[in-house]
Amino acid sequence: MYVVVVYDVDQKRCTKMLKLCRGYLHHIQNSVFEGEITEARLEELKIKAKKIMNEEDKDSLIVFKSRNEKWLDKEIVGFDKRPVDNIL
Amino acid sequence: MYVVVVYDVDQKRCTKMLKLCRGYLHHIQNSVFEGEITEARLEELKIKAKKIMNEEDKDSLIVFKSRNEKWLDKEIVGFDKRPVDNIL
Repeated sequence: MYVVVVYDVDQKRCTKMLKLCRGYLHHIQNSVFEGEITEARLEELKIKAKKIMNEEDKDSLIVFKSRNEKWLDKEIVGFDKRPVDNIL
Repeated sequence: MYVVVVYDVDQKRCTKMLKLCRGYLHHIQNSVFEGEITEARLEELKIKAKKIMNEEDKDSLIVFKSRNEKWLDKEIVGFDKRPVDNIL
């Protein structure tokens, strides 16, 4: 499935979240990632993210899932931070 | 159509972008918005955003479009910043 992941965490946890998400998805903007992922790998990412995040500090991560990349059009306005390069 | 909008702009332009996007979509996380929108309203939002943004400063806005909200599942891990409330 194709996902877009966005997170909003306290500054001191940003680097850890960035490194974690980079191992699973393409980094396309500040705290925004996208890419193809299996259900199992997504579950793994969420479990690891929960260990980093602190809900009391209002850290949050949102996953938008689309069963098919074709059902999700992407448009970039302004600067294109990072063209999607295949990390596999 | 259903969209998710994320922006990454210089700190001094964040407030303006926040106010702009709030007039069109639901604010669900730091610089993340979602909601139902017409093609015309989305075009209007993008034009106004371009006027605020500075591409040389690497400001960017990304629009993920799904023809149907049902094709896009959303899952929140951690703190739910703002339950989607209908602004109409």
